[in-house]
Amino acid sequence: MSVLVVGSVALDSVETPRDKREDILGGSASFFSTVASMLTSVRLVAVVGEDFPAEHLEMLAARGVDLEGLQKADGRTFRWSGRYHGDMVGRTTLDTQLNVFEHFKPQLPDSYRDSDLVFLANIHPELQGDVLAQVKDAKFVALDTMNFWLTEPHVELLRPLLKRVDAIILNDEEARMLSGQHNLVKAAAAIRLMGVGHVVIKRGDAGAMLFDDGGIFWAAAFPLENVVDPTGAGDSFAGGFMAYLAHAGAFNTMEIRRAMIVGSAAASFAVEDFSVDRFRNLTRDQLLARCAAFAKLVEFESIVL
Amino acid sequence: MSVLVVGSVALDSVETPRDKREDILGGSASFFSTVASMLTSVRLVAVVGEDFPAEHLEMLAARGVDLEGLQKADGRTFRWSGRYHGDMVGRTTLDTQLNVFEHFKPQLPDSYRDSDLVFLANIHPELQGDVLAQVKDAKFVALDTMNFWLTEPHVELLRPLLKRVDAIILNDEEARMLSGQHNLVKAAAAIRLMGVGHVVIKRGDAGAMLFDDGGIFWAAAFPLENVVDPTGAGDSFAGGFMAYLAHAGAFNTMEIRRAMIVGSAAASFAVEDFSVDRFRNLTRDQLLARCAAFAKLVEFESIVL
Repeated sequence: MSVLVVGSVALDSVETPRDKREDILGGSASFFSTVASMLTSVRLVAVVGEDFPAEHLEMLAARGVDLEGLQKADGRTFRWSGRYHGDMVGRTTLDTQLNVFEHFKPQLPDSYRDSDLVFLANIHPELQGDVLAQVKDAKFVALDTMNFWLTEPHVELLRPLLKRVDAIILNDEEARMLSGQHNLVKAAAAIRLMGVGHVVIKRGDAGAMLFDDGGIFWAAAFPLENVVDPTGAGDSFAGGFMAYLAHAGAFNTMEIRRAMIVGSAAASFAVEDFSVDRFRNLTRDQLLARCAAFAKLVEFESIVL
Repeated sequence: MSVLVVGSVALDSVETPRDKREDILGGSASFFSTVASMLTSVRLVAVVGEDFPAEHLEMLAARGVDLEGLQKADGRTFRWSGRYHGDMVGRTTLDTQLNVFEHFKPQLPDSYRDSDLVFLANIHPELQGDVLAQVKDAKFVALDTMNFWLTEPHVELLRPLLKRVDAIILNDEEARMLSGQHNLVKAAAAIRLMGVGHVVIKRGDAGAMLFDDGGIFWAAAFPLENVVDPTGAGDSFAGGFMAYLAHAGAFNTMEIRRAMIVGSAAASFAVEDFSVDRFRNLTRDQLLARCAAFAKLVEFESIVL
């Protein structure tokens, strides 16, 4: 099955307590498609500026990512720069330049319209709705968002979308904002009542939780000794999650639980290097081995009392 | 196998955003022994004052808890009062009256000296050492502590104990203090180098992690919709953990992983009511059912890529 992603392709400048990088490949759609291309065919919808390095496009093309939907606009590519704090969790955004992303209008090539799975990365909810209207036969749609779109009046544009997507992927603070509930079990229940069947709540180094008809599932975060750069962990999670579902070709609770693990494994690799670098030479067997390590991490067999 | 616990028996006054209770049964040894008595025989070493209500002693005795080591001293019982914040995680201590606990010297009755498992709850490390010297044939010893004992000069009294216990149970901030490492994988490795074979790090609503020769194990925290009173969760965890090991009669990694789950299940019950109230009528089958729910919470079967 094919996966369509609409989101950002950016150039990031990242500072951590130990290192820094300038103008490296970033953006939700970059992380998503780099990861997802390990397991399935990916179609990308995004925009870059005239200054975007050809090597990144070559890298994506070499992974089989379909770039027909990648627009090239006059001007500079979307740029983000940030500094991570000592705990490698908190971060300060130093600069955001929307550049060509400011007037981005996603246009789907005709060849994308039969996409089976669709990931609406964090962009304006109106644009997410535009894309959704162009892929009416999609079998599984997931949506990401951010705190900004959860405030009035933007959240009113988001609400109708929630009735039309199969899964929402958001972090714990966003789940609390959207639901008005602090307790995550209550927050997820409230969001499900808004019309989303599968609610995925990312909790950073506490893992990620799935709430759906099958109950609650907890995917641990892989315990890492060295985190190099947390940027892109969430979009790598989404890439692994959606690509696994495309690969499995089914969307029942057990497959979605497995997708949570593949997503968590992808996120754990993403933070081990800057940009998408950890995925450049990563094999499918290495990804599978980390999924097996997740199984071992929570293994306790049966208990008799 | 028999479990010995040395710790506090207290009267707590607890305020939550929705409710409050005064002078209810509290203290590490109370939670520990109430829980552990569901699965094994428990021997209690603690001190209470003249004002301690007989009904609590009757409750513990009815559960088969051996109270021969419970001292009755002149004066008032140890009292703690605190107020939980809106998130039911943060809390403010309003008052601590050590009372008879100030001059507590644990004395083990002769009949306790053959105890198989020993839990040294959070008390002065010197007292923990005194107890340890009185149970030389113990097969498994676990130690809890708190931030205060991890500061100089107290921590120097704690260090030699770490070479003599099998497991240390502490929370994430305490693990960071003791090790000087922020990353929990590194913190646990550093603490293991201090001489403890099994390091258990409690992470509140992110669960608890075990680090030992078997690798890393992650016990999720049970997702609860309503937390009534978080007091005693950690000591209930320890009670379930040690009681399961006594029940199993073996201390290999897989049994210790199972003990983590029984402890987590006990902690999840503890917070569903004030004091030890949730355990008063809780059955072993209900405890087992919650352990099974933990298995379901992390279940994803095998993944094929």
